[in-house]
Amino acid sequence: MSNYEDLILYFEDQLDKIQYNNRPIELYDPIKYTLGFGGKRIRPVTTLMGCELFSSNYKKALPQAIAIELFHNFTLIHDDIMDDAPIRRGKETVFKKWNSNIAILSGDTLFALAYQYAQQADNVILKDILSVFNQTAIEVCEGQQFDLNYETKDSVSVDEYINMIRLKTGVLFGASLKIGALIGGASTSDADLLYDFGVNIGLGFQLKDDLLDTFGNEIVFGKKNGGDIVSNKKTYLYIKALESAIDSDRNILLKHYKSSELQSDSKIKLIKDMFIKLKVDIAASEVIDGFFNLGIESLDKINLPSKRKIQLMEVAVKMIDRNK
Amino acid sequence: MSNYEDLILYFEDQLDKIQYNNRPIELYDPIKYTLGFGGKRIRPVTTLMGCELFSSNYKKALPQAIAIELFHNFTLIHDDIMDDAPIRRGKETVFKKWNSNIAILSGDTLFALAYQYAQQADNVILKDILSVFNQTAIEVCEGQQFDLNYETKDSVSVDEYINMIRLKTGVLFGASLKIGALIGGASTSDADLLYDFGVNIGLGFQLKDDLLDTFGNEIVFGKKNGGDIVSNKKTYLYIKALESAIDSDRNILLKHYKSSELQSDSKIKLIKDMFIKLKVDIAASEVIDGFFNLGIESLDKINLPSKRKIQLMEVAVKMIDRNK
Repeated sequence: MSNYEDLILYFEDQLDKIQYNNRPIELYDPIKYTLGFGGKRIRPVTTLMGCELFSSNYKKALPQAIAIELFHNFTLIHDDIMDDAPIRRGKETVFKKWNSNIAILSGDTLFALAYQYAQQADNVILKDILSVFNQTAIEVCEGQQFDLNYETKDSVSVDEYINMIRLKTGVLFGASLKIGALIGGASTSDADLLYDFGVNIGLGFQLKDDLLDTFGNEIVFGKKNGGDIVSNKKTYLYIKALESAIDSDRNILLKHYKSSELQSDSKIKLIKDMFIKLKVDIAASEVIDGFFNLGIESLDKINLPSKRKIQLMEVAVKMIDRNK
Repeated sequence: MSNYEDLILYFEDQLDKIQYNNRPIELYDPIKYTLGFGGKRIRPVTTLMGCELFSSNYKKALPQAIAIELFHNFTLIHDDIMDDAPIRRGKETVFKKWNSNIAILSGDTLFALAYQYAQQADNVILKDILSVFNQTAIEVCEGQQFDLNYETKDSVSVDEYINMIRLKTGVLFGASLKIGALIGGASTSDADLLYDFGVNIGLGFQLKDDLLDTFGNEIVFGKKNGGDIVSNKKTYLYIKALESAIDSDRNILLKHYKSSELQSDSKIKLIKDMFIKLKVDIAASEVIDGFFNLGIESLDKINLPSKRKIQLMEVAVKMIDRNK
């Protein structure tokens, strides 16, 4: 099996080689800019790994790996408009650097380009691959809409939150792996198991993000704790805290989470203390472990020698058992 | 061959039967709303006609006809945000009725849904169909970007303008017909000829829009002349006028087209008179006829008895030789 870091280098190199149309530059400059940001490239690399699990040649999944990465970047460009986010990966977002019309349209173009790569598969498996891709694209949009809805919705349940991040984040990890597996010649049942692995690890990955934002080691994580708290984000921690708290604690949370009465540092301290009192940091870790275990169970069931699965296991650990 | 009006009724009926996911309603309500607007449904109907040209059963092109209509409506939802257009087909646009985030995301979902229908074709022709679909999607985005660019660009040539409307409008007509033809079993060369027919008729259709907006019979056309003039739109007429005019006339055009100094009615009269003086109405009619003839030439070359082509000829006449 190929080394994870080697696969990243291979993918980066191939992504760099894409030739875009030159005109109109207002469409293609933002696309090149966004793809040049870097990013972890986890998704496309798992597509290559999903393929290599069942085939000696991971390179035949390259077009689909590119499709996944283009699709992911399309969602980032559009999400940043909707979230009014000025910065991504330390750089100005497309709609800030150019404008929102250009961000809408270069995003649309990137989406179409993603399909141009997705369709580069053998005719016999093309429809299966596109079905996964389409279904995922629709679900990611649904997830983003639920996310926008929950910003203003008074009460969001833990189940609703988990379903939202499943759609917004989980299914794309599942699809990345499943599409790679299908290209590699996996049976439908093995491909589905790999999909379940990806979705669950994706859920754990996102929940870990929530946890690190509030409780991460600030030096290792690279940013101050409490960004989500300051921006009143309805994370797993906050939703679970509201569900677990007795009335008096719930009222404190409700009063201070949305309000800008307190200074940032005081607000972060008050909310973090409440989270610890309500043990939602522990609850989050348990839920993350639960998703990790569910993912590994699916991976275990795949009809291949355990040895072949070690590398994906390592990716799962890297995604979930991380400090940054 | 089936009757044009019958095909519209069949298509409307089938489009009505689409079952969308129910949640989140913020995504699916705008989609149902937009598709419920009506519209002429020319594009999907030509997909059915393109199929019936080569096959006894136009119904097998229904998924692709739906794909074309969904794609077209996706572009309308996003274009209306970019153009800040409050009204379409007499109703509030999605971004006005809801908001621009919902318009972005329901548009994205519609784009993904379009692919879900496009891919419902036999494996042997699937890749050819998707190639046309992808290429067209990218070109339509490019056309829209050129259109946005030209709003603020000082000088736009007739060639640039024609290329822009070819991308923004022409290629989707071409693709609608070509995809239908491929589903119907046409040879590549016949499908390409039908594409050329569609692109040229689409160009004529769009230029006719420009002409009617300024010179149409107001009672028949259903709106007052000069909408494009009042909103300073760089139409064929304006661009051609600038190209044809001697300096003094060009200066009058440049001075008054962009300015809001004159009252609307006076501005319309002044510009219309100048257009007539410069004979750009006649030039436009000639260019429209030229595209019509190019389209018909391509249709003529298709390897089928002339009798089978009469109906498409009638569609071309309906699209171009119209007063409204």
